[in-house]
Amino acid sequence: MCYGVLRVVDNALLLLTIAVMEIIQTIHQMQVFADEVRASGKILSLVSTMGYLHEGHLSLVRRAREESDVVVVSIFVNPAQFGPGEDLGSYPRDFESDRMLLQKERVDVIFAPSVAQMYPEPSLTYVYVHLLTETLCGADRPGHLDGVSLVVAKLFNICKPHKAYFGAKDFQQQLVIRRMVRDLNFDVEIVTCPIFREEDGLAMSSRNTYLSPRERSCAQVLNQSLAEAERMVKEGERNVETILGKMREMIEAKNPDRIDYVSAVDPNTLEPIQEIKCPVLFALAAKFGKSRLIDNRLVEP
Amino acid sequence: MCYGVLRVVDNALLLLTIAVMEIIQTIHQMQVFADEVRASGKILSLVSTMGYLHEGHLSLVRRAREESDVVVVSIFVNPAQFGPGEDLGSYPRDFESDRMLLQKERVDVIFAPSVAQMYPEPSLTYVYVHLLTETLCGADRPGHLDGVSLVVAKLFNICKPHKAYFGAKDFQQQLVIRRMVRDLNFDVEIVTCPIFREEDGLAMSSRNTYLSPRERSCAQVLNQSLAEAERMVKEGERNVETILGKMREMIEAKNPDRIDYVSAVDPNTLEPIQEIKCPVLFALAAKFGKSRLIDNRLVEP
Repeated sequence: MCYGVLRVVDNALLLLTIAVMEIIQTIHQMQVFADEVRASGKILSLVSTMGYLHEGHLSLVRRAREESDVVVVSIFVNPAQFGPGEDLGSYPRDFESDRMLLQKERVDVIFAPSVAQMYPEPSLTYVYVHLLTETLCGADRPGHLDGVSLVVAKLFNICKPHKAYFGAKDFQQQLVIRRMVRDLNFDVEIVTCPIFREEDGLAMSSRNTYLSPRERSCAQVLNQSLAEAERMVKEGERNVETILGKMREMIEAKNPDRIDYVSAVDPNTLEPIQEIKCPVLFALAAKFGKSRLIDNRLVEP
Repeated sequence: MCYGVLRVVDNALLLLTIAVMEIIQTIHQMQVFADEVRASGKILSLVSTMGYLHEGHLSLVRRAREESDVVVVSIFVNPAQFGPGEDLGSYPRDFESDRMLLQKERVDVIFAPSVAQMYPEPSLTYVYVHLLTETLCGADRPGHLDGVSLVVAKLFNICKPHKAYFGAKDFQQQLVIRRMVRDLNFDVEIVTCPIFREEDGLAMSSRNTYLSPRERSCAQVLNQSLAEAERMVKEGERNVETILGKMREMIEAKNPDRIDYVSAVDPNTLEPIQEIKCPVLFALAAKFGKSRLIDNRLVEP
């Protein structure tokens, strides 16, 4: 929402356009706002986040800004997508910093509801996307992707976007959401944006802030192992086991606290593949210190 | 959608207002139509049906007609809510009769998608409403209410109504949908309309057409047993077992092919109650011939 302000400075008229970013905290207000935007014929976009924004999030916001009239960024650390023993309590939060970053990107609305606003009572309704949620992160974090589809369904009904932007780092998440949108006929276009990386190649993540300098350095191996997988495919290697073995060896050499998976899957179904014929998604999850990190790369033979 | 037509008849000008009812068969067209209606500030209502309309459906349509600017009636026999061995194949259909009835009620749009339009591939996404779907009809027809919440979620995303009308005969269904709407923040007001009955008290149902004259006569006992339960409560009976025993005895005397349940439950949680203190829902399901019939009555002590 923009308006012009006339200011008299040293007898000169300056026309300043000041972007006024609204912060909406209630579901009802957000729905009313969305209805107004849609009725006016403007294109409304949503970037849903858990806050603690980094350049990865901002790349989604910039793309949304380019492609739509009104940009809503939701900031909500969604309890439903954290399992017991996960980092819900310690998940990093800094609303003031997020607010300033989004103001700079000329975002129109931050939707920042409380937990009581989003979950006034425990949800009896579950949105399950079968098969796609049962592998990769879904296998290691039971309920996580169900919590994601629940909150995204809620956010779509609250923010009523024409388009919603997701990052390719959470490849499985955007695939699950795409499928939910298709199956439930949400009138929302899902846009997936490329992974945004640190200079050394580490995929940007709010959880990178947990890393010690040493862990931070070791974690580079995740992207390096994906690059190695791509190199091997480009040079003609077609045996998945050979490639995954090499990746795992590289990662293990950096002493991660845990490797959850190193996988080669069909990018449409997430089913494991044995031999590389079509485009393949290499995807991995590993823990360094307190940070469970994920990364992936789509490789065409 | 109405327009005026000028006709010259015997030198007299007659202004006829002809209601033109649209039939929409694709999801995309329906979403575009709904967006246009909403953008124009009009109130859009949805009555979702499986067709073969009777006065019960029409009572919902009339209420919607009174309370909104644009009325959409969906006609779709939803395979997802039929279990194996249920009557999906033989479920009665008569689109031409439905069309004429709805034309008379000045409905604006019939949304009549094909199965291929609604389910171009098997849905991987399931919408489960826990607890509320695990009792009464949910216990006897596993998956039935999940199929209902799936299709209603789809219809809400396709038709984008401000209000949606459901009948109280399917009390559990409207409760499940209300909860789904609350949990997923659908911006839809759910309106529940009273049960519409035949002259002899039998609740209207498309499945009544399966009944032989003898079965039709016996099936009156369902409503009669509910009336008896109400009478007993009004006269001071507080013991649920005594009342349910009497109801069951009345129904059994009419030799139903099966009694699925005769229950007294909390109308908010559908949990069985032992003693009557607050409003209680008496609900039952029984099979006469090929027809599984349901009925219920809310009774205040």
